[in-house]
Amino acid sequence: MPRYALKIEYHGGPFAGWQRQREQPSVQQAVEEALRRLDPAVGSIAAAGRTDAGVHATGQVAHADLSRDWDPFRLSAALNHHLKPAPVAILGAAAVDGNWHARFSALERRYVFRLLSRRAPATHDAGLVWQVRHPLDPDAMQAGADRLIGRHDFTTFRSTMCQAGSPVKTLDRLTVTTVPHAVGTEYRFDVRARSFLHNQVRSFVGTLERVGAGAWSPDDVTAALQARDRAACGPVCPPQGLYLADVGYPEDPFARS
Amino acid sequence: MPRYALKIEYHGGPFAGWQRQREQPSVQQAVEEALRRLDPAVGSIAAAGRTDAGVHATGQVAHADLSRDWDPFRLSAALNHHLKPAPVAILGAAAVDGNWHARFSALERRYVFRLLSRRAPATHDAGLVWQVRHPLDPDAMQAGADRLIGRHDFTTFRSTMCQAGSPVKTLDRLTVTTVPHAVGTEYRFDVRARSFLHNQVRSFVGTLERVGAGAWSPDDVTAALQARDRAACGPVCPPQGLYLADVGYPEDPFARS
Repeated sequence: MPRYALKIEYHGGPFAGWQRQREQPSVQQAVEEALRRLDPAVGSIAAAGRTDAGVHATGQVAHADLSRDWDPFRLSAALNHHLKPAPVAILGAAAVDGNWHARFSALERRYVFRLLSRRAPATHDAGLVWQVRHPLDPDAMQAGADRLIGRHDFTTFRSTMCQAGSPVKTLDRLTVTTVPHAVGTEYRFDVRARSFLHNQVRSFVGTLERVGAGAWSPDDVTAALQARDRAACGPVCPPQGLYLADVGYPEDPFARS
Repeated sequence: MPRYALKIEYHGGPFAGWQRQREQPSVQQAVEEALRRLDPAVGSIAAAGRTDAGVHATGQVAHADLSRDWDPFRLSAALNHHLKPAPVAILGAAAVDGNWHARFSALERRYVFRLLSRRAPATHDAGLVWQVRHPLDPDAMQAGADRLIGRHDFTTFRSTMCQAGSPVKTLDRLTVTTVPHAVGTEYRFDVRARSFLHNQVRSFVGTLERVGAGAWSPDDVTAALQARDRAACGPVCPPQGLYLADVGYPEDPFARS
């Protein structure tokens, strides 16, 4: 059966997350149902990252095995047609080898988190950012972030529900960029690693927001990391600022499309 | 009665427009109801621009006469509290003279229109842009826009419902800026004039999109303008890409806030 990689964008708001669940809408279900409109034999699809309820994606990657060959461009267009009106878009499709796997072939996941500081409530950005009403110090947040880079036991920064075999992960990048808005300031976190623990990015951002607000020091971040204790984490921030932005593979399957 | 100017941002999606209407939600009604929670004597409020159904604002300006003095900062915060959960935010408030008028004192209105060209359906930008699926030529759109600058009889570009006394207006600025997206390209129109006719900006953008698509030439724009005939206009584009971005006054009432 020919295998296709799909690059997927979605608004996480209406979904209980990526993963198919009984009696709750999921992105996986939406994509699978669109695939079955084209090919009733399509089975379950696998994705690079299982995003939580309310979390967005601009570059989720999944793969599906189809019964026949498709022109990738036509496959994307047909899926987008059947996905309407769900806020899920197929950005690209590519034929891949039968041993290529969206999850297990991935070398890197990249997440972006959008944190908006402004007093007036967000209107156009509602549901797309985490908003706080107080000012934040981006240099302090970056100083705190620097304490987390590298290979560590991240027990403090993972959900007690996390099913990963080990809490030891290598964080390759965690940078804070300031994006001025007409009113207010956005702080955009760029977070990269081979793989992440459950709630790791939201645990990082919730903790670093406390540093930006002046309630925590960068040294407190180091102490929290070293505690290897979930209770030492700052507050886990809400999901609506989080985006699965990109997945890295040994060779980009979408480079040709 | 002390008069206050309010700078207002809103998502036009849930509203039948700025202006209060019987049995349909309006932004004016939402703001007036919030004001009456603070001061039951507040009458009808006046705004610089009567935006249509679905049109957004990032810088609408209105004024209200209140029974007592308010600290402008507290007034904004209290109104934002009472506006929840409507997607309407008071960005600023300022005390103004009793003869200052949000509509009649205005010297300039500035609109922004967001036109997104990409094949895959918009997800996070849904309702915030006008999306087309074909490529557009920004230089051609700018060449067409240049034909509209200046003082003209804009009969071609106004709704047959327009109640303005004269179709002659002076268009001060109409520029097209290219904003790259991760997937697709956004064309942002910056449109400025002392005042506008009904549907003028959407008539401009709908016509210029035809130029960008190659269906019209810039000369066709000139011919349409010179026809002074509504039937000569290109298609009027939908409202959800349009933002009332700013209103200019002889002195900015919000400069102090």
